[in-house]
Amino acid sequence: MIRATSLDLNCDMGESFGVYKLGSDLLLLPYVSSISIACGFHAGDPSIMRETMVLAKERDISIGAHPGYPDLAGFGRRPMQLTPAEVYDVVVYQVGAFLGVAKSLNVDATHVKVHGALYNAASADNALAAAIARAIYAVDSGLTLVGLAQSKLIEAGIEQGLRVSREAFADRRYKADGSLVSRSHPMALYHDFAEAKEQLQELLTTGYVTALTGEKVAIQADTICVHGDSAEAIDFARGLRSLMSELGITLSRLERG
Amino acid sequence: MIRATSLDLNCDMGESFGVYKLGSDLLLLPYVSSISIACGFHAGDPSIMRETMVLAKERDISIGAHPGYPDLAGFGRRPMQLTPAEVYDVVVYQVGAFLGVAKSLNVDATHVKVHGALYNAASADNALAAAIARAIYAVDSGLTLVGLAQSKLIEAGIEQGLRVSREAFADRRYKADGSLVSRSHPMALYHDFAEAKEQLQELLTTGYVTALTGEKVAIQADTICVHGDSAEAIDFARGLRSLMSELGITLSRLERG
Amino acid sequence: MIRATSLDLNCDMGESFGVYKLGSDLLLLPYVSSISIACGFHAGDPSIMRETMVLAKERDISIGAHPGYPDLAGFGRRPMQLTPAEVYDVVVYQVGAFLGVAKSLNVDATHVKVHGALYNAASADNALAAAIARAIYAVDSGLTLVGLAQSKLIEAGIEQGLRVSREAFADRRYKADGSLVSRSHPMALYHDFAEAKEQLQELLTTGYVTALTGEKVAIQADTICVHGDSAEAIDFARGLRSLMSELGITLSRLERG
Amino acid sequence: MIRATSLDLNCDMGESFGVYKLGSDLLLLPYVSSISIACGFHAGDPSIMRETMVLAKERDISIGAHPGYPDLAGFGRRPMQLTPAEVYDVVVYQVGAFLGVAKSLNVDATHVKVHGALYNAASADNALAAAIARAIYAVDSGLTLVGLAQSKLIEAGIEQGLRVSREAFADRRYKADGSLVSRSHPMALYHDFAEAKEQLQELLTTGYVTALTGEKVAIQADTICVHGDSAEAIDFARGLRSLMSELGITLSRLERG
Repeated sequence: MIRATSLDLNCDMGESFGVYKLGSDLLLLPYVSSISIACGFHAGDPSIMRETMVLAKERDISIGAHPGYPDLAGFGRRPMQLTPAEVYDVVVYQVGAFLGVAKSLNVDATHVKVHGALYNAASADNALAAAIARAIYAVDSGLTLVGLAQSKLIEAGIEQGLRVSREAFADRRYKADGSLVSRSHPMALYHDFAEAKEQLQELLTTGYVTALTGEKVAIQADTICVHGDSAEAIDFARGLRSLMSELGITLSRLERG
Repeated sequence: MIRATSLDLNCDMGESFGVYKLGSDLLLLPYVSSISIACGFHAGDPSIMRETMVLAKERDISIGAHPGYPDLAGFGRRPMQLTPAEVYDVVVYQVGAFLGVAKSLNVDATHVKVHGALYNAASADNALAAAIARAIYAVDSGLTLVGLAQSKLIEAGIEQGLRVSREAFADRRYKADGSLVSRSHPMALYHDFAEAKEQLQELLTTGYVTALTGEKVAIQADTICVHGDSAEAIDFARGLRSLMSELGITLSRLERG
Repeated sequence: MIRATSLDLNCDMGESFGVYKLGSDLLLLPYVSSISIACGFHAGDPSIMRETMVLAKERDISIGAHPGYPDLAGFGRRPMQLTPAEVYDVVVYQVGAFLGVAKSLNVDATHVKVHGALYNAASADNALAAAIARAIYAVDSGLTLVGLAQSKLIEAGIEQGLRVSREAFADRRYKADGSLVSRSHPMALYHDFAEAKEQLQELLTTGYVTALTGEKVAIQADTICVHGDSAEAIDFARGLRSLMSELGITLSRLERG
Repeated sequence: MIRATSLDLNCDMGESFGVYKLGSDLLLLPYVSSISIACGFHAGDPSIMRETMVLAKERDISIGAHPGYPDLAGFGRRPMQLTPAEVYDVVVYQVGAFLGVAKSLNVDATHVKVHGALYNAASADNALAAAIARAIYAVDSGLTLVGLAQSKLIEAGIEQGLRVSREAFADRRYKADGSLVSRSHPMALYHDFAEAKEQLQELLTTGYVTALTGEKVAIQADTICVHGDSAEAIDFARGLRSLMSELGITLSRLERG
């Protein structure tokens, strides 16, 4: 393998809603190079979107749209059976709203990463993945599609002619086929950074992760996800940065295609 | 006065939601030159927006965004006290979503006309009017702002440097100051086209309308609103077109600034 | 088999929302003995609920709650993965809201029938079915649970100690296991009443229906569903009534347990 | 005046929504005798309602419904122009949902206190106040109506035959007519408990508060509001309790009428 010499660290942000605050956006911003901003369907609202983009602009961090299912009550984490045509329409709408806010601040958007249950469904379903890639391309063909490394989303993005960024996770466990262990599984997440660090170190030095069932799984990653809604978020982010430093890997933000 | 030689006829469309159908979009399209499309807050949804734009594109009709209050239950007709900053954000978001859908279809958007209670509030309130004009300008400075003739919205649009289109109504009664009689008033609307025709004829030939209280009110109009949600909508639209024909006034769609 | 001598005819009503009108409630009311009223999650709103109950009260028709998934955009017809605990809570809430409106009008509620994708999911899933039965029992143990004949919902209701009413369909096709052919299947529905009549006649005279794949399926039915949202709804309802008349089966509304 | 010998301390709770947490319900519960629980329109959801009632039941604290405007994005604090008929319907619905959840836990509900902008509007508007009182009475005539002391809400409750509880505020400033200074005013709130304590002490020992403009305003209070969403909420609650102790006033929870 060719060892990565640079990586993006991305985090989902702007997931507050009205009076409701979620996440530690301000504390995490110094550690990441790109953020994906909720677009009002599963989280976020027009004011939060603007405020979050202002914070990113001040720090020269890449911003992208983070569209999700229309399910605020479930934070977009509950599987919902939308048709590919419905998914296409809700992604076009949310990416458009996102670009409108970005334009109002004269900020360039770099990418789109879909959220939660939609991310999981599209990782494994050709028709949903293609609908998302087509939607992004139709609104702005220069946007980079961020998706799970080795997933249908990445395939669909390439097929569509989009630049893609392959995402890997330090703190989520993998299955033997390269997909993620479901959040409902008790061992889905590493809660201890020492373990997450080990998984990431293996990935960055060998190009493999060890699946929950023991297999070695080849993963090519361009960006690593930093979860923003956990108590240990800051420690994780700081740990990731220092590991990259140790390995001589520089931070490089997402770019347009 | 200089008599108008051409006029736009505009109608609000795309106000269905999910399984719920509203209006007679298909029947009215042949009579109008511009439509304003609901953006999902007071009515409309991502799929309806796309379908409505496809219909307009086939007929070369101007399309604009029709943003409203976040009040689907009240169809955006209930006054809500949003701050100018909140109004700014919800207009940026909705116009952005609208432009995203338009871009996905390669259609140019020409204008923005805010809806219902927001339209009324901004017609009389400098701060709200300015917030709307700034929001439109920030997302796309080439969009034309459609607002009630002689209102604060038109003033704010001009001040902001936007092209404006002054809207008049054939079937709604006016007050002496050029504002509209509230919908809650029993005489707010002409239900009989003969009366609406008389008001429009006076407006188009003299430049004045007669207020509910008898005064003559000078109104300069660039576009006439055709209501799409009434039983008599088609008859009205047909009547407006034939009156324009009699008076030698041609139909001219809204254009970008 | 023992031939039925009386049957309930039920219809879903109150599925309008705000300015949006759906169904032909007023035209169908004369033909049915029980109605299930949407509770504001997939359709319906507080005012529509009250208005619909007033109509039913005037005609002495049984009323029940018709709770659904929190998905107005999808009319509750899109599968959503709520946990049994979440389903329990949304059913308790919606049935409570329904009983509040009924109490305000001094009308007794007789039953609960869940809607759309929740109905389908709970027909085949023990945990969801049990959650619904427990929710109904916890709010009002005298309510009758209406569910698909031969389904998990009926089993769960009996287990919980609720009175149950087994529902059958004249115009939907059955699978060999007694479940319904999914609405997404091209042959899910009989659009022609002659065919629906044949299925119902077979059911009422033999106790069997013929599955799409040809098998005879035993079905014991207490209530027949009349769909309210189709163009042919009135003809169907009238046809069902006259078939019952021919067969000497009287109409008997749902009752409390 | 007759000095109060006992008082209720009430707090709004259950104002979280989905993954969004708000307030310090668990920390405040030990200090109050009654809580009002959001009903899903401006805040709260079916699961949060149940969880909040379980907490109250364990501590034998009175629970009441806390209905608000349908405005989650604005937390029910933005004035909205609903008609009295619309207010009647949304209160019936929310109180019904609340009673359904309470019934499922075998807890008796004691009261209703409307929220935010609806509370303010109804304090000053006879028609809205009457609509709320009628709605409560129609669903459960034994519920106590909690409203601002000296307001139209209290008058309407008495007129309707409901038991009422007159609410006063330690930390909000009063106007000369006994109404509250609007939250948008810079001096609307005492942020320092020492000042709030002074206002409450004056109220409890003399029966008067000092208006922002200096006048003495007679206020008869049965219950004092403890705000749950401020940083100093716990200190305030503890301070109120110790002041009551100093003055020999016992804590008495709200009861049904």
